[in-house]
Amino acid sequence: MDFSISQDLQARLTELREFVDSRVLPLEPKLLAGGFAAVEADLETVRNEVRGHGWWAPNHPKEWGGQGWDLLSHALVLEVLGRTPLGLYSFGTQAPDAGNIELLHMHGTPEHKEQWLGRMVRGEIRSCFAMTEPHTAGSNPVMLETRALRDGDDYVISGRKWFATGADGAALCIVMAVTNPDAPPYQRASMILVPKNAPGLVHVRNISVMGHAGSGWISHAELEFQEVRVPVSSLLGPEGQGFVLAQHRLGPGRIHHCMRWLGASGRALDLMKARAQSRVLGPDSVLADKQLVQNHLAESAIELNAARLATLHAAWRIGHDGAKAARLEISLIKVQVAQTLQRIVDRAIQVHGALGVTDDTVLSFLYREERAARIYDGADEVHLASIAKQLLKPYSHSESDVTQPLRK
Amino acid sequence: MDFSISQDLQARLTELREFVDSRVLPLEPKLLAGGFAAVEADLETVRNEVRGHGWWAPNHPKEWGGQGWDLLSHALVLEVLGRTPLGLYSFGTQAPDAGNIELLHMHGTPEHKEQWLGRMVRGEIRSCFAMTEPHTAGSNPVMLETRALRDGDDYVISGRKWFATGADGAALCIVMAVTNPDAPPYQRASMILVPKNAPGLVHVRNISVMGHAGSGWISHAELEFQEVRVPVSSLLGPEGQGFVLAQHRLGPGRIHHCMRWLGASGRALDLMKARAQSRVLGPDSVLADKQLVQNHLAESAIELNAARLATLHAAWRIGHDGAKAARLEISLIKVQVAQTLQRIVDRAIQVHGALGVTDDTVLSFLYREERAARIYDGADEVHLASIAKQLLKPYSHSESDVTQPLRK
Amino acid sequence: MDFSISQDLQARLTELREFVDSRVLPLEPKLLAGGFAAVEADLETVRNEVRGHGWWAPNHPKEWGGQGWDLLSHALVLEVLGRTPLGLYSFGTQAPDAGNIELLHMHGTPEHKEQWLGRMVRGEIRSCFAMTEPHTAGSNPVMLETRALRDGDDYVISGRKWFATGADGAALCIVMAVTNPDAPPYQRASMILVPKNAPGLVHVRNISVMGHAGSGWISHAELEFQEVRVPVSSLLGPEGQGFVLAQHRLGPGRIHHCMRWLGASGRALDLMKARAQSRVLGPDSVLADKQLVQNHLAESAIELNAARLATLHAAWRIGHDGAKAARLEISLIKVQVAQTLQRIVDRAIQVHGALGVTDDTVLSFLYREERAARIYDGADEVHLASIAKQLLKPYSHSESDVTQPLRK
Amino acid sequence: MDFSISQDLQARLTELREFVDSRVLPLEPKLLAGGFAAVEADLETVRNEVRGHGWWAPNHPKEWGGQGWDLLSHALVLEVLGRTPLGLYSFGTQAPDAGNIELLHMHGTPEHKEQWLGRMVRGEIRSCFAMTEPHTAGSNPVMLETRALRDGDDYVISGRKWFATGADGAALCIVMAVTNPDAPPYQRASMILVPKNAPGLVHVRNISVMGHAGSGWISHAELEFQEVRVPVSSLLGPEGQGFVLAQHRLGPGRIHHCMRWLGASGRALDLMKARAQSRVLGPDSVLADKQLVQNHLAESAIELNAARLATLHAAWRIGHDGAKAARLEISLIKVQVAQTLQRIVDRAIQVHGALGVTDDTVLSFLYREERAARIYDGADEVHLASIAKQLLKPYSHSESDVTQPLRK
Repeated sequence: MDFSISQDLQARLTELREFVDSRVLPLEPKLLAGGFAAVEADLETVRNEVRGHGWWAPNHPKEWGGQGWDLLSHALVLEVLGRTPLGLYSFGTQAPDAGNIELLHMHGTPEHKEQWLGRMVRGEIRSCFAMTEPHTAGSNPVMLETRALRDGDDYVISGRKWFATGADGAALCIVMAVTNPDAPPYQRASMILVPKNAPGLVHVRNISVMGHAGSGWISHAELEFQEVRVPVSSLLGPEGQGFVLAQHRLGPGRIHHCMRWLGASGRALDLMKARAQSRVLGPDSVLADKQLVQNHLAESAIELNAARLATLHAAWRIGHDGAKAARLEISLIKVQVAQTLQRIVDRAIQVHGALGVTDDTVLSFLYREERAARIYDGADEVHLASIAKQLLKPYSHSESDVTQPLRK
Repeated sequence: MDFSISQDLQARLTELREFVDSRVLPLEPKLLAGGFAAVEADLETVRNEVRGHGWWAPNHPKEWGGQGWDLLSHALVLEVLGRTPLGLYSFGTQAPDAGNIELLHMHGTPEHKEQWLGRMVRGEIRSCFAMTEPHTAGSNPVMLETRALRDGDDYVISGRKWFATGADGAALCIVMAVTNPDAPPYQRASMILVPKNAPGLVHVRNISVMGHAGSGWISHAELEFQEVRVPVSSLLGPEGQGFVLAQHRLGPGRIHHCMRWLGASGRALDLMKARAQSRVLGPDSVLADKQLVQNHLAESAIELNAARLATLHAAWRIGHDGAKAARLEISLIKVQVAQTLQRIVDRAIQVHGALGVTDDTVLSFLYREERAARIYDGADEVHLASIAKQLLKPYSHSESDVTQPLRK
Repeated sequence: MDFSISQDLQARLTELREFVDSRVLPLEPKLLAGGFAAVEADLETVRNEVRGHGWWAPNHPKEWGGQGWDLLSHALVLEVLGRTPLGLYSFGTQAPDAGNIELLHMHGTPEHKEQWLGRMVRGEIRSCFAMTEPHTAGSNPVMLETRALRDGDDYVISGRKWFATGADGAALCIVMAVTNPDAPPYQRASMILVPKNAPGLVHVRNISVMGHAGSGWISHAELEFQEVRVPVSSLLGPEGQGFVLAQHRLGPGRIHHCMRWLGASGRALDLMKARAQSRVLGPDSVLADKQLVQNHLAESAIELNAARLATLHAAWRIGHDGAKAARLEISLIKVQVAQTLQRIVDRAIQVHGALGVTDDTVLSFLYREERAARIYDGADEVHLASIAKQLLKPYSHSESDVTQPLRK
Repeated sequence: MDFSISQDLQARLTELREFVDSRVLPLEPKLLAGGFAAVEADLETVRNEVRGHGWWAPNHPKEWGGQGWDLLSHALVLEVLGRTPLGLYSFGTQAPDAGNIELLHMHGTPEHKEQWLGRMVRGEIRSCFAMTEPHTAGSNPVMLETRALRDGDDYVISGRKWFATGADGAALCIVMAVTNPDAPPYQRASMILVPKNAPGLVHVRNISVMGHAGSGWISHAELEFQEVRVPVSSLLGPEGQGFVLAQHRLGPGRIHHCMRWLGASGRALDLMKARAQSRVLGPDSVLADKQLVQNHLAESAIELNAARLATLHAAWRIGHDGAKAARLEISLIKVQVAQTLQRIVDRAIQVHGALGVTDDTVLSFLYREERAARIYDGADEVHLASIAKQLLKPYSHSESDVTQPLRK
């Protein structure tokens, strides 16, 4: 067991940290004031600098324009980038494109790759992922209502999706639709590639989330598929394997989310420390002198340290034993890190007082935007039940005697 | 000890509840989409209906146009109105005007009342309260920087204030400024009435809070007093008594806040129940069948029931023994109810899943806007320390023997 | 709504408080060192003093030797007595006798009362209640294994019970047994009076609980009914109504428990305050100066105040509307107060440091003995699910539209 | 970064786990019924088996009879041994001897080692450590009252100590006493070796802790030093360096505690799983089917996984960078793991229902005995404040501008 990081990697992380702090953080006030549209041009400049440094798309395949870093190293990179809501986008490794790129790379046909993959990795186009439906519970695959009916050499897709992140301005949409309604529940749906501008694909709205409909990459769309027709060659992976592919997508994806959240948690903790040291309460007194403030700091550090190590361990386990073997570890951190982030941001706001609820710091943005972390990719409650099931697997009734009251 | 409510009062509360549900709640989607400006006209219609029903300004003095209800009855009214962010405004009992009206009624000169009080009670004009400063800690009166210098028959006021709620569109500003810099700390400041349009009173900005700068009554302003000149007759109460008046304002004001938060908590709990019963998870299953959802409901009900009774008790105690005697009870509920609201809204969002973070329900508005409840009127941490001090008063070192280890 | 207590009652509570503090608290060290047996003789002296003051058995019927106080007044008495583990016993109002006396008074035949009731009320004999079984889940009545088979004019009872509190030294045992195995689940069991010395009633053991098997009133027995034969006239209430009677017993019984726990919580808070003020940390510093200690105090006060009002409200509601109407309120406080007690005792231990885990104060006794409060009379988890069901009753699917995402 | 464990070590841990489960766990009922005295003979048998396997004293120096394992490997061993309260003792690696052995090994003179070290490592004698005083706060060194006055070639020691774990039956006592009262605070005290049977060293009592005075190794003594005279050669390390030595002792010692607590937490989680699967609630239903039980399991697993990785990281860091560099990490886990253990044991009791509070499982023992974990070696509150101080070190006022509200 060795927790050390190579000097090379450490040097790289330090470089990235300096870049993020000096080039990306300063864009936040514009983002907070005007949304994604207000910073899109500046971000393009930053992205070009990232490309110039040879840092672009750290996790993506080299042959398509990325850097090909392994999961554990990339996880540490994401922690650095997660310090600001604009970090991942600046480096071409943002959701949902990162997951879509993985799907295309692993399951796409040569034609799919030719048409989409390179441009996506290089950041020339964006994509979205349309799975969740507004009127059905995502946790139950039987309920999926969107249908892709075979009609000659085409699929005709009908249904309503929402929370398609970044659909506004995307070129490609990967949609999950029922192709085999009579198959066993988890083999009914398929993933299909649909150009965002396909006839019948109606962009209903950017959903107003926590006060803002957002725009561009920072938005979540409701989409209506009104008999959208695509050739059967648009199928991604085998028919009926949509849920299998979705699971593939989720494993490393959850590491990505968790490391990003840890980065954001670290940022919030840094702001909390700086505020505690700088807020003057009297001639010889600053906020940091108060034990209740110290308590907010200390509990945050305890939780962050532990959540970070649990996530790095899960990332290591995926690399070492595969995502399937690491399923329990992944569920553990999904719940833990999302809750840790929420608690640390909440404490940071409290330490900032009135300033904390303003948009003069990034904290209120994190408070609003990251509340969803406990919901997407499986709500806490779903993961908790799933964790329990995995924990209980090795146990059977025969072991019961050890826990019965003694017969005397 | 008798927890019953008179039949008259119960009937009145039922009437109000029906009115709020049928006339005020339907305005929420407009508010969520467009802010206060979008609903101001509709609200004026509703307010006229309220006036027509004889419900206007339930807590304010009859002689100035209110209904003169006692604190405990008004508390129960506020719980009903608090079900929607627009409830108190609809009934002419919203902060900060309610507190300002109390100040003017209790401490204003006949001229002050003539000029301001009637129009404020009747809802013809709005007012704001400027105490908090962006660069000094509100918990320490010695640090207040805003100065009102006596110059002949005038005060000349200079300084910067923020979080002046509803300053946008207000006619009157009550400002707290140091008039006696050499007095003991809590006798340095005074309250002064300043017309909002006074020369030199610069409206710097509506502060962007949780993603929105807001407008009109739903906004919080940063104000700069640049040598604003007002006659000394603008003094409210005696010179140097600003903090005493502020304390007067806070006692019942905290009951008002708490009952409003309890109303909002009840609304969130109702939404949670309805969602749990209506969200279909499968052929024979709804969300309410899940124990973790039941747990969210049950814990919310436990906390809400207890917080409600504690608040009603504190309101009764103010009426019975006065605000000073009830100081401990008031601090207890300030912390408890603000935290209860936050937890219940958080659980309600979780039960709503993705829908919970959208602006399709009022929950995300409550989540954002009411985060400040744990900060304003004294942050949790300040109240906790203050509670402890009150608890410890009766104890002295002489009682120590009971808690020492036994000598044997 | 009126939270005041009559001057008479207040005076009585003050008297009782002084008596408890001066006469009962001083027995605690003996209890902590030697268990119930070590204090039984002293307690008899105290009980005679209580009888002499005319305070004996405050809640029990006057005609049988009690004082006949109403539930709400008695609740306030129990809070005072609950300050020490010996308080209720000293006043002849301890569990399980209190509940058994109520059962006999409400459902006993004249012969039952003649034989048992007077002696129990007067504290001449003790009784126990045998319902829980070691190998079946108490939450499911179908699973009850103990049988009372009709054989001529007798019942023959067979089965195993445990957690029969105070069975050691009791004269009477009220046992719950299945008499009608083919009836609907909740109508299968009956309550039957069995002399503790009946042939075949084997006292298997005083169960070792949290380190001690205990003795006398402070013990919990495992009992084996080996074909215990009693005449059918021993039936308490109608055949098959055991669960109905048990519910009757539980309503006010839970108020009793909760008020006792509130008394214990108040005691722990008092110890915490005294310790905080007396523990010297340095020349000018005591523990109470530390904000984290202040926080323990303040959070305890918030929770205690709220739990107390919720319990008094539930007691009032039982008196006003009946136990059935107050079912939700009773479940709410069962969970809340048991958890509040545990948290406050835990904090008090923490504030006492090493002293807190010793038996030099009553805290470690409370920590151990009252852990069961979250389990008996329905575990937290059972009540939480039950609360949710009651909350959800008024809701049906038809209300669902308000919580669906907007169709646009 | 590599989380893998060598095959050798993994095989060893599996062996140890099997030994502990088959040979040590079965002694628990005797311990629970009769205390240490009841199992001492059985334990000696087990210890001889451990010696026979070549596992004895895994962490202690080979030259004195141990196995010389490194800290990280030993930490993993302690997790296995921590599954039962008798595990560490069975392997000769129990506190306080382990820490005392380290002190003697690092700071003892050849004579000290000759006289004490070998016999202690080989488990032939036990020792105790007398630092805490009943009437002074351990967190403030200035307050230490015990004095060792130089008198010729002797020290004469006077004072009172308590919580000297295992003093009952110990041969050696290491006592902390003020030798240099006029030195700077942290240089006033020294450690001195005192034979337990020295004249004047009065064993006042085994302190009754959580209901039991205990005996032998499982007891905590109050000791009175009444002018105890020892030669100056009994000094351990340099005069005035007592606190420095105590810090040395604490670093790895906290890893030991934490890993033991993690082992106990894992045991409690295992019992919880087995109980959940085996407790029948109805024809087709066991406790594990209930989501609230699943929640207890899942939250415990999340916390245990994270606490475990944090502790292993801290152990690695001590090995890699030294205990001083790892000071923050050590404080983080001291608080985290002690709280994690308490929460998991609490949940395990809840899942066991009435059985959980009995002594029919080890849970109630853990609940009582390990409550002190949040107090000894620095109470949670002391560590939280210390963590905050370490976090804030790098921050100064100059960074304040990033957290000030924007000037506009």
